Amino acid sequence: MKSEQQQQKLDQLRHSLAHLLAASVRSLYPTARNAIGPAIENGFYQDFDMGGATITNEDFPKIEKHMRELLSKWQDFREWPVTPDEARLAMADNPYKLELIDDFAQDGKNITLNDPGNFVDLCKGGHSADPRSTLKHFKLLSVAGAYWKGSEKNQMLTRIYGTAFASKEELTAHLTLLEDAKKRDHKKLGVELDLFTFSENVGKGLPLWTPKGSALRRVLERFIIDEEIKRGYLHVYTPDIANLKLYQKSGHYPYYKDSMYAPITIDDEEFMLRPMTCPHHFELYNSRPRSYKELPMRIAEIAHLYRYEKSGELMGLLRVRAFSLTDAHIVARKSQAEQVINEVFDLIEYLCDLFGLKMGENYHYRLSLGSRADDTKYFKDDASWDYAESTLRKVLVDRKAIFVEAPNEAAFYGPKVDVQMKNANGKEDTAFTNQYDFVMPKRFDMKFTNEEGREEEPIVIHRASLGAIERTVAFLIEHFAGAFPVWLAPVQVAVIPITDDQHAYAEQIYEKLKAAGFRVENDNESESLQKRIRQAEKQKIPYMLIIGGKEVEGQTVSVRGRGQQDFGTMPLDQFQTKLKGLIDTKSLGLSLG
Amino acid sequence: MKSEQQQQKLDQLRHSLAHLLAASVRSLYPTARNAIGPAIENGFYQDFDMGGATITNEDFPKIEKHMRELLSKWQDFREWPVTPDEARLAMADNPYKLELIDDFAQDGKNITLNDPGNFVDLCKGGHSADPRSTLKHFKLLSVAGAYWKGSEKNQMLTRIYGTAFASKEELTAHLTLLEDAKKRDHKKLGVELDLFTFSENVGKGLPLWTPKGSALRRVLERFIIDEEIKRGYLHVYTPDIANLKLYQKSGHYPYYKDSMYAPITIDDEEFMLRPMTCPHHFELYNSRPRSYKELPMRIAEIAHLYRYEKSGELMGLLRVRAFSLTDAHIVARKSQAEQVINEVFDLIEYLCDLFGLKMGENYHYRLSLGSRADDTKYFKDDASWDYAESTLRKVLVDRKAIFVEAPNEAAFYGPKVDVQMKNANGKEDTAFTNQYDFVMPKRFDMKFTNEEGREEEPIVIHRASLGAIERTVAFLIEHFAGAFPVWLAPVQVAVIPITDDQHAYAEQIYEKLKAAGFRVENDNESESLQKRIRQAEKQKIPYMLIIGGKEVEGQTVSVRGRGQQDFGTMPLDQFQTKLKGLIDTKSLGLSLG
Repeated sequence: MKSEQQQQKLDQLRHSLAHLLAASVRSLYPTARNAIGPAIENGFYQDFDMGGATITNEDFPKIEKHMRELLSKWQDFREWPVTPDEARLAMADNPYKLELIDDFAQDGKNITLNDPGNFVDLCKGGHSADPRSTLKHFKLLSVAGAYWKGSEKNQMLTRIYGTAFASKEELTAHLTLLEDAKKRDHKKLGVELDLFTFSENVGKGLPLWTPKGSALRRVLERFIIDEEIKRGYLHVYTPDIANLKLYQKSGHYPYYKDSMYAPITIDDEEFMLRPMTCPHHFELYNSRPRSYKELPMRIAEIAHLYRYEKSGELMGLLRVRAFSLTDAHIVARKSQAEQVINEVFDLIEYLCDLFGLKMGENYHYRLSLGSRADDTKYFKDDASWDYAESTLRKVLVDRKAIFVEAPNEAAFYGPKVDVQMKNANGKEDTAFTNQYDFVMPKRFDMKFTNEEGREEEPIVIHRASLGAIERTVAFLIEHFAGAFPVWLAPVQVAVIPITDDQHAYAEQIYEKLKAAGFRVENDNESESLQKRIRQAEKQKIPYMLIIGGKEVEGQTVSVRGRGQQDFGTMPLDQFQTKLKGLIDTKSLGLSLG
Repeated sequence: MKSEQQQQKLDQLRHSLAHLLAASVRSLYPTARNAIGPAIENGFYQDFDMGGATITNEDFPKIEKHMRELLSKWQDFREWPVTPDEARLAMADNPYKLELIDDFAQDGKNITLNDPGNFVDLCKGGHSADPRSTLKHFKLLSVAGAYWKGSEKNQMLTRIYGTAFASKEELTAHLTLLEDAKKRDHKKLGVELDLFTFSENVGKGLPLWTPKGSALRRVLERFIIDEEIKRGYLHVYTPDIANLKLYQKSGHYPYYKDSMYAPITIDDEEFMLRPMTCPHHFELYNSRPRSYKELPMRIAEIAHLYRYEKSGELMGLLRVRAFSLTDAHIVARKSQAEQVINEVFDLIEYLCDLFGLKMGENYHYRLSLGSRADDTKYFKDDASWDYAESTLRKVLVDRKAIFVEAPNEAAFYGPKVDVQMKNANGKEDTAFTNQYDFVMPKRFDMKFTNEEGREEEPIVIHRASLGAIERTVAFLIEHFAGAFPVWLAPVQVAVIPITDDQHAYAEQIYEKLKAAGFRVENDNESESLQKRIRQAEKQKIPYMLIIGGKEVEGQTVSVRGRGQQDFGTMPLDQFQTKLKGLIDTKSLGLSLG
């Protein structure tokens, strides 16, 4: 991780480049007017009203070239304070800057202009020193639409994204990562590997899983259910809709309203597509009296949930409007919290390990804390907050977990630990979460009878093991670049006869493997052998069984692994046993040794 | 099955008893007014406006006694035609009859009065001859509320149900069946066996499956998915909601509107909770060009569906507002229809066999046909109707299926074969359906490329293998009276140590069985042995492993089967192997021989 000072310098560099981009575009496109241009993760963007002109990726070389020409004349940024009227005069031809000047003036903020040599702009400051040497390592990446001030009511502007680093090496490394991420893009691979599709008639953000994608999803779902049952979870099914009053009881409604879809009126009652599973599980818990002997009670479900996302923010399987969360609510005594939280981390780390993800490298934890001072954001119960936060921290420290603390980031009902995962773009994202809740048990009047026959109130741990199946599959597609371990691969084996003479034997092999429960394809199309092998490689099928005359004669199969690995010739039974072994152990590699 | 003439006599008998019931109630409750009283399956009912009086089951003996007293004076029904005014005069004290007289008069219908001796009534006729001897075998069953003319806008009346048969033997047999059905009632067993529950806060008709019920459901769902995949089905996941325009395209909306919930507006579009899966599967089919080589393409899914049911009609798992259908759509060439339909029946009969259901005894088929004359009810395409109907009939005849034909009962888009199942009450119900569809492929513009590279239109077979999971589980609970075969049982084995001394060994056995994937309970509560055995019997757990000192010493288990079966003492491994065998073969019996 970078020091605060390094990060600040990088931000200044990136923000300065937004000015340079503005200068270049305004010089090349006289009708263009620049709006805002901040530094972002790994780069910067600059918004423009193009005044009728258009810009595509193909214009980038020209714009970049002119950026370098302008940069060669830049000096250290000169910054000077001005009055609103002076600013208005300087920015008279730019309605966006004029609007910002009005905003600043109204708020009583200072207004400054700046100029690195040949481009005067309105800006609050924060620029690089010695621009000619510091701003060299940049590249424009993409162009997109963006509303002025982020509001759909305003005009749509043209946003140009760029990336920039302090050194050539870092820039090259990042561009390589982006190039690789493009190949791993789950939307692209989702089509190429035929895993999922969308239909305009069904609706945006509502994926339809094809048979292959469904095979992958089914394996994942069954695996996590079985694994959780082994670990003492009780898996249930609860309805995907519920009466509005359930969310009024939980307190989610109306506060969570913007993420929920509009109610459906059935007879005289209003029903909601559920945005979370907790209240359903609490009702199930409350369906009969509970004893301390039943605790911790780990109620789990792969729950269909619905949350509103703006149509512009939908993206493949990563941002959808309906998803399936591997959810659970662990009802426990306060004294069991430490044990139960440890169990949750055990499961998460087991899963990460299974996918070859390493703590520190691919993921770390983030402990989100509350604030005793803020009673509107956080439920007022200092003692419970203290206990919950120190319990979570103790567990993380005791198990030597790598974690950061994030003050003032907790949920309303208690602190939480997020699992922060690096995706194929190198970006960090919250994958799963593990929340401590001492509020909902009160709202739902949850109780258990203790050893003395008296009623006590439990606590609840909310957690997701594999997260949302949709997001997790998107992540796994990109993580493995579609080359899944054999236990997850939608098709595990392709049987490829060399000529028509081997069709009958190939068919036998196909039927045997299918009957044994393997996911297998019989690839006996009248295409050339090379083409069929290329096709199987493109589909990233782990194993190809190449069947020639020699294999028929010897009643064997010639095994080729994905990525041109040669595993030699062996009897089918032997291949089958080895394959089963790799699947049972959820091996990441394909070696049959 | 009964002849038409026998059935007519039985209907007359039952309808006559409705008169007798009306006579008795009006004589015992002077404020009561009788509305309508038809024959129904296995009996009759009579509706009353009780004029402030109430009737409960406890009044039945008194009412029945008075029925027999009145009957002893009855003669053959005298029936005579009257004018509306004469009828109004005779029925002057009964506003319901007066309303019926007005209806009849307006429709120009004949009006008749009748009297068996001491009770004049308005009725269209159809009564038993020799009532004193024919009407003897009846019994009142239950009382319920019912709206006058079935409309919620009208007054709620009191409906008394009775059963009646031609002979004492038939009546007794039916009462025994009802007694047995009461014990098998899935709502009652659902609570006793802790399989599912409802919550007023979640909503009516929306079951929450407990861990035990969920185990049963999960086993069923995984089984049917695996079985279907073995048979060439492609299992998918598609969203539970869809844009309204999808149902406009399919033609279901607005015609199917009353069964659908109100739309949910998302941005500017309207979305529906889906009431059926077909359009989703058709969109998936259309997501890429298809070749004849891909047909028949069997697209299957356990689909979450939503259909409106009136709150008064909701019943346990049998009538719900959200359910999961084991649905499939087989897209095929017309020439493949026969093969594909045969395959569907093969699967249905395999499943019935698995549950011990016999064709002819527990179920039969019903071939529902269209009508070439009715173009509003049926899509106009005589040639396609002829082909589809004759194909379905040919398949049924060729496979020697037991079936009846039902004219004018087809779906809009083609003929169908329903599987008619007898439930625990002896009532017949449609369990699954197998529909031939030549209309939707047109609406969805579904195509495939044939051998000559030209586009052709496929046909579609709609089918449900295990029906709706909710209904099927309700049926199975009643069919097995909760004593499920071991492969389905929510808990398969209870480990019961005799005293505290065996706790450690019992725990070992429990852990071993659990690790091997069996569903097992460790029943080491500080209750008496007898009580724990009684408890396991009540929970209908297939096997109890009784662990005493002798078992610890010999490292064995003493196996007791549900229903007091003694399977002797054996090493745990041996029990485990036998148990696994019974589960793998989905045995109906528990014998470990």
